[in-house]
Amino acid sequence: MTQHYQNVRESRLERGRRALAEIDGQAGEKVVASLADIAPDFATYVIEFPFGDIYSRPGLDLRAREIATIAALTAMGNAAPQLKVHIEAGLNVGLSRDEITEIIMQMAVYAGFPAALNGLFAAKEVFAHIHATE
Amino acid sequence: MTQHYQNVRESRLERGRRALAEIDGQAGEKVVASLADIAPDFATYVIEFPFGDIYSRPGLDLRAREIATIAALTAMGNAAPQLKVHIEAGLNVGLSRDEITEIIMQMAVYAGFPAALNGLFAAKEVFAHIHATE
Amino acid sequence: MTQHYQNVRESRLERGRRALAEIDGQAGEKVVASLADIAPDFATYVIEFPFGDIYSRPGLDLRAREIATIAALTAMGNAAPQLKVHIEAGLNVGLSRDEITEIIMQMAVYAGFPAALNGLFAAKEVFAHIHATE
Amino acid sequence: MTQHYQNVRESRLERGRRALAEIDGQAGEKVVASLADIAPDFATYVIEFPFGDIYSRPGLDLRAREIATIAALTAMGNAAPQLKVHIEAGLNVGLSRDEITEIIMQMAVYAGFPAALNGLFAAKEVFAHIHATE
Amino acid sequence: MTQHYQNVRESRLERGRRALAEIDGQAGEKVVASLADIAPDFATYVIEFPFGDIYSRPGLDLRAREIATIAALTAMGNAAPQLKVHIEAGLNVGLSRDEITEIIMQMAVYAGFPAALNGLFAAKEVFAHIHATE
Amino acid sequence: MTQHYQNVRESRLERGRRALAEIDGQAGEKVVASLADIAPDFATYVIEFPFGDIYSRPGLDLRAREIATIAALTAMGNAAPQLKVHIEAGLNVGLSRDEITEIIMQMAVYAGFPAALNGLFAAKEVFAHIHATE
Repeated sequence: MTQHYQNVRESRLERGRRALAEIDGQAGEKVVASLADIAPDFATYVIEFPFGDIYSRPGLDLRAREIATIAALTAMGNAAPQLKVHIEAGLNVGLSRDEITEIIMQMAVYAGFPAALNGLFAAKEVFAHIHATE
Repeated sequence: MTQHYQNVRESRLERGRRALAEIDGQAGEKVVASLADIAPDFATYVIEFPFGDIYSRPGLDLRAREIATIAALTAMGNAAPQLKVHIEAGLNVGLSRDEITEIIMQMAVYAGFPAALNGLFAAKEVFAHIHATE
Repeated sequence: MTQHYQNVRESRLERGRRALAEIDGQAGEKVVASLADIAPDFATYVIEFPFGDIYSRPGLDLRAREIATIAALTAMGNAAPQLKVHIEAGLNVGLSRDEITEIIMQMAVYAGFPAALNGLFAAKEVFAHIHATE
Repeated sequence: MTQHYQNVRESRLERGRRALAEIDGQAGEKVVASLADIAPDFATYVIEFPFGDIYSRPGLDLRAREIATIAALTAMGNAAPQLKVHIEAGLNVGLSRDEITEIIMQMAVYAGFPAALNGLFAAKEVFAHIHATE
Repeated sequence: MTQHYQNVRESRLERGRRALAEIDGQAGEKVVASLADIAPDFATYVIEFPFGDIYSRPGLDLRAREIATIAALTAMGNAAPQLKVHIEAGLNVGLSRDEITEIIMQMAVYAGFPAALNGLFAAKEVFAHIHATE
Repeated sequence: MTQHYQNVRESRLERGRRALAEIDGQAGEKVVASLADIAPDFATYVIEFPFGDIYSRPGLDLRAREIATIAALTAMGNAAPQLKVHIEAGLNVGLSRDEITEIIMQMAVYAGFPAALNGLFAAKEVFAHIHATE
């Protein structure tokens, strides 16, 4: 996998689209599509800032970035749909199922056992869905 | 750095003490000491469960574990003292200042700009303190 | 729309009932009814304090109050049923669909993109439901 | 009900199993079973630390411990499945339905009306389910 | 201590004042006084709803109510001044220092170790202050 | 005050700088300056996305946007420095002190009395500081 998203000739939107496709795959496209009728400009922002700006920065690889995101969304405990998208993204950028499970379990220390339990159940669902569609 | 904390002859408390010393250094010992007069049993739990159980597990290296913790504490936004301890821990286990800054900046996407800003100011304080005592 | 809820002869409960009916409409009555068998006193408190005391105060109009409530519930991210009630309330007191969408989008800045996304999906559901029943 | 969980010959896991069975009953066993295929070690941690360590401590009775847990989970507002388990646990350790309703209502003061409302709806569901299976 | 706050001839404000004085003592009066210049009506609401309505209800004794409040404020982790007021209130209504410490420690299970640690440090401060002024 | 920030010849950064200066004044410049040594790119993002993209959108006036932000930051309860900046910004875009106080008081309904109290104390500090420097 190449992570050289920074390309001066490319717009933030183009760069973001490439990053989103590589990281989130179909799950990311689905989120963007679901915004088309209610807030199309927000779909652009979602691609531009998180993916065109942040994930495209060279200072941290995508594996580390997905560890951070899975940890944060598990700990916050109020964003189940996004956590599922990023558990799948974690697999896409090279994290193993066991590593994702370790990250979520660790959140029991910082955000409590309910947050970790709900994170594990989200992972279980994502892993089962991927297994069923493989 | 060796991460072979799992040693069957060792108790959770002994294993946790070794992990805490390696990861958190003096900052960890200070937290434990500050609990001595109010809740000494809690000091034991802090060493046993997070460090003796979780951080000692072989499935994820300490670098990845600190990425997860720094991300979560930044995103939660209500645990500044613990975030500072883990920014220092991140440096102890091999993360660079720039990598820590990247992790915290990324949290703007998931927890908002105020959480990321307050995380960056915590990092600035930790980095300055380390510089001053070197 | 008149907002002269303050009427000295009226009890807090009566004033709250009038405000609740005007602001939340049927959605508010449904919440109150659903409390009848488990916590009828709480139904009274819901009418008295938020509606009889706070929303009836003359210092801020209902449009501004619903902007504040939609923003807060989107940012908190853990109260989807109440957010939907107040998206409908926002329409009742004169906010347009586009204005509500703007408020929710803005929360990406303060509470992160997942909170804003989940708020937009809640709005989409409310708008579709109103369209279907018109 | 005896609360003498502290027994020096017993391991944390054995002590935790006894406490979990008494407090959470079948709901607790169900949670543990659901972790078997994704994170069996986490099932062990759930039994050992919360139940083997914390709930088994002699300094606070189970009734007080469940008041604290129901209050916290209602206030946090992002752990509905765990709140339901502990509403049932509250009944198991001797809290009445009315007392549980009082605890949840009080959370309106500290965490807002939406958190209290969602807590009351969770209680309503648990009470109805118990009634249906009695 | 008598908890018969419900007195039909008394207004909510009068009943709230009596409850506030008994539960929060001087700390409560200080909060009310500090609102005088910025939001005097809010001082009235603080007395009326939490104390005149909720704490005055007969269905749960003040000891149980303070267990619930200390637990919730520790778990939420973003209201240190109010947590300190209620640790003092807990002592006023008969909780021992050890019981308060147990409640806060238990929150590590539901809200993570940082929330419990910060709660314990708040308790340490309150206990030291009371000792110094005795 | 003109709010026609959308100017096609202008970059997001230029547009954001103008919006930031008008809305946050010196407080905004201070935040940007404080990032210069630790995360200069983040200073750019803070100007570009919140101010160049969101606050510059024509669909909602600045008065409404600051109502939303003050409400959200009060309700979240974990971003005191940013809340203070936006209380000042609220005054800059035309909200009165009384209106700001109303917005914060209303948050007691959605996020609890501690969040509202801490918001009021933040406002008191900002109002006093402005008075002292006038």
